[in-house]
Amino acid sequence: MSATIHSAEILCVGTELLLGDIVNTNAAFLSRKLAELGISVYKHTAVGDNPKRLKSALAEALEHADLVITSGGLGPTYDDLTKETVAEYFGKKLSMHEESLETIRAYFAKTGRVMTKNNEKQAMMPEGATVFPNHYGTAPSLAITGGENDSKTVIMLPGPPGELCPIFNEEILPYLKARRDSVLVSRNIHIFGMGESAVETALGDLMQTATNPTVAPYCKEGEVRLRVTASADTEECAKEMCDEMIERISDTEVGKFIYGLDIDSIENALVSALREKKMTFACAESCTGGLIAKRMTDISGCSDVFVGGCVTYANEAKVALLGVKEETIKAHGAVSAETAVEMARGVRERLGADIGVSTTGIAGPSGGTPEKPVGTVFVGISTKDGEIFRKLSLSPMRSREYIRIVSATNAFDMALKSL
Amino acid sequence: MSATIHSAEILCVGTELLLGDIVNTNAAFLSRKLAELGISVYKHTAVGDNPKRLKSALAEALEHADLVITSGGLGPTYDDLTKETVAEYFGKKLSMHEESLETIRAYFAKTGRVMTKNNEKQAMMPEGATVFPNHYGTAPSLAITGGENDSKTVIMLPGPPGELCPIFNEEILPYLKARRDSVLVSRNIHIFGMGESAVETALGDLMQTATNPTVAPYCKEGEVRLRVTASADTEECAKEMCDEMIERISDTEVGKFIYGLDIDSIENALVSALREKKMTFACAESCTGGLIAKRMTDISGCSDVFVGGCVTYANEAKVALLGVKEETIKAHGAVSAETAVEMARGVRERLGADIGVSTTGIAGPSGGTPEKPVGTVFVGISTKDGEIFRKLSLSPMRSREYIRIVSATNAFDMALKSL
Repeated sequence: MSATIHSAEILCVGTELLLGDIVNTNAAFLSRKLAELGISVYKHTAVGDNPKRLKSALAEALEHADLVITSGGLGPTYDDLTKETVAEYFGKKLSMHEESLETIRAYFAKTGRVMTKNNEKQAMMPEGATVFPNHYGTAPSLAITGGENDSKTVIMLPGPPGELCPIFNEEILPYLKARRDSVLVSRNIHIFGMGESAVETALGDLMQTATNPTVAPYCKEGEVRLRVTASADTEECAKEMCDEMIERISDTEVGKFIYGLDIDSIENALVSALREKKMTFACAESCTGGLIAKRMTDISGCSDVFVGGCVTYANEAKVALLGVKEETIKAHGAVSAETAVEMARGVRERLGADIGVSTTGIAGPSGGTPEKPVGTVFVGISTKDGEIFRKLSLSPMRSREYIRIVSATNAFDMALKSL
Repeated sequence: MSATIHSAEILCVGTELLLGDIVNTNAAFLSRKLAELGISVYKHTAVGDNPKRLKSALAEALEHADLVITSGGLGPTYDDLTKETVAEYFGKKLSMHEESLETIRAYFAKTGRVMTKNNEKQAMMPEGATVFPNHYGTAPSLAITGGENDSKTVIMLPGPPGELCPIFNEEILPYLKARRDSVLVSRNIHIFGMGESAVETALGDLMQTATNPTVAPYCKEGEVRLRVTASADTEECAKEMCDEMIERISDTEVGKFIYGLDIDSIENALVSALREKKMTFACAESCTGGLIAKRMTDISGCSDVFVGGCVTYANEAKVALLGVKEETIKAHGAVSAETAVEMARGVRERLGADIGVSTTGIAGPSGGTPEKPVGTVFVGISTKDGEIFRKLSLSPMRSREYIRIVSATNAFDMALKSL
C-alpha cells in the first residue's frame, strides 16, 4: 500500500450527464462517503465519453488531489474508455484478468443472458491494478496507483448507482480505510422540531470550538442532523470520543429533540420503535396524498408494523372511507383540527391499528385563503391513550413538495413521541 | 449583443456540493435546457466557496466554451464570491445597481423579513452586466461578456433550484435565444409499453439518418421519450418540420404506444384526459404503497379528478377497506390477478369513482418465492365497462424503487388506455 490519502477529486464520465438526462447522484454519494473518511473533496468534474477531454480532466484533477475517483466508462462498448485512458496516463499496459473474466461469465450465466465478445473487454486490467469484483453488474472496479512514489491513486467505479453504491460500501471503503494513518468514526444525531439556528444557539460555541471530535450540522426539509466525527489511533478510542460528545449534546436543550442515532430517516426510527413494541401504524392522508404511506413502504419488510392507509383527497372519501362526520367538515372545514382528529381516529379504528395519524392542509401553490394560507396543515394522531393534533403554519413561499414532506415528517414525529 | 453561442460549460459553486449534502440537480437542469437550444455542453465542474479554485475552474471552462453558466455564490455573505471572481477575471469593476437594490428591498418588505446591510452586496454589479431580476429570492442574476471581441459570456444564477429554474425559463431562455443565428424548436414524444431497443428497431434508420429535425431517445424507468428538434429561420417553419417528423413516427408501429406530446409525465397525461372527460380516478395500492396516490397528488389541483385511494398493505386491510373476499386471498394469494381485480373494484365502488386501479406484487428485495419471484406484480383496473389485469414480470435484479415506479406507471397507462 502507498501513501496516505488526504484529498480527492471526483470525475464522472458519461455523455448522458452532459445532456442532462441523468442527475449526478454519484458525485454526492462519493463526496459524503469521503467526508466521513476525513478526505477533503476539492472538485467534481463531469465529462462526456470523449477520451481527450477525459484525459485533460484527469490530469487537472491529479495535479491537486491524492485520489481521483471516477464513475462510468467501464462498459463493454467502444466509447467506454475510462480504464484505457487512466492506464495510458500512468503508462501501464492492459492485459486479460482471468479471474474477472470468470466472474463476468458467471454473472451472465446467473442472469440468463448471452455474453458477447465485447464483454471480454471489461476483464482487461492495467498492470498492478487492485481489482474489486462486481456482484451487481458486469464491470469490475479497480484501483491503480502511479506518479512520483506512487503518491497518486485512481479508483474507477461503474456508472449505475445500483452498482457504484454497494461496491463502494463493500470494497472501496475497506481499501480506503487501510490507507489512513488514523481511524475515523462518525456518528449521526437526528433532530426534529428545532431549526438549525436554534440548535446552533443551544450548543453555544461547542460547534465552532470542537476539533476532535468535530460537530457539523446538515439540514433537510425541517430536519437537522449533527455529524460527530472523531479521529484516534483505534476504533474503540474514536467511538468512545464520539459517545462522550453525543452525551454532552444530549445534556443540552437539544436533547429532547433527538429522535435517533445513525438512522436513515425518521420513518426508519418509527418502524424500529413500532417493531420493538409490537405495535401497528395506519395513516389517513389528505394534503400529503400518499407520501406517508409511500415513505413507510420504501422500507422493505415494513408490513409487520404498517397495516395500510387511506388517501382521502375528496371530502366524500373522508366520509366514506374514514367515517369523518359530514357536520364536522361543514362546521370546521376539511382543513381543521377537528377533521384531522376524526381522520386519525377513523383510520385507526377501521384498520385495527394501534396508532392512526392524519394530515389535512393546503400544500399549494393554489388553494390558500386569508384565514388558511398555503402552508396551513393539521396533523392528527389517535392512540388508545387519546387524540391530539399539531397545527403547522409553514411559509407560503415554500414549494408544494416541501410542505408535503414536512407534514409527513411531523406525522412520523408525533407517532414516535406517542410510543 | 455579441457572437453566437455554440458551446457551454456549467460551473456550480458551493461547499455543500463537495460535502455531498446536496445533489447537483442544477447541472442536469441547465444541460437539458442547453441541449434543447442546440448548445453543446462540454463539461460540468463543481467547486467549493473558494475564490482561487473558482477562478481556475472559470479560466479552464472559458478556454474551451463560448458560454459558462454558474450557479451559486451570489448570496449576501462574505464567502459568496462568484460575481466578484468573474468580474475580476474580465477586469470589470463593481458598482451599486440601484434598480436591483430596490427589488431586493421590495422582496424583503413582501416577505416580512428584515433586510440586513450585507444584502446590499447582492445589488453590486460589474460594469456592462445585463441584470435579470429575481422574483423568487434576493440574488439578482446577471450576464457579462468579455474576452477577445466579447466572444465569451458568463451567466451567473443563484444556487437554490427554486430560484434558478424559474429565472432560467423566464429570463435566460429569451436572452440565449436572441444569441442564436437560427430558431430551434423541440417537441417530446412520450412512449410507454415499448422498450428503447424495440423503438429503435421500429424506426429503422430514421433516428440515425435524420439530421434536421434530429430524433434522440431518452429513457427512464420503463418509459421512452423521443425528442424531435428542428432548426430553421422562423419558429413557424421549425414547428412545421417537427410536426411532419412526429407524423412520420406516429405512422410506424411506435404510434400506438405514444401517450402524449410535450407532457411532463404519464400522470399528467392521465389528469388532463380525465378532466377532459369529466371522469374520476381512485387507486388501491399494495406493493406501490402510496406511490400512485403520491404521484397523482404531486400535481397541484388534481382534486377534481382524483378522489382518493387506499394503501392496503396487510391482507386484513384489503378485506376491511376494499371488501376483497377472504376466500379470494386464501385460494389465489394476495399477489394474484383475482385479488388485484377485487381491489380495483372495491376502491372504485367504495369511493364512487369512474376508474379504480390496483397493484399487488413483490417489490423486493425480500419476499420472493420460486412461483412468484421478486418483480411479479399484478395491476388491475375496474371501470363501468369491465375489469382487466396486467401481469408484470420485472427482473428480480431491479431495485425495489424501480419495481414500484414501473408498477405505478403501468396503472396510469391502463387507466389512460381505458379512456
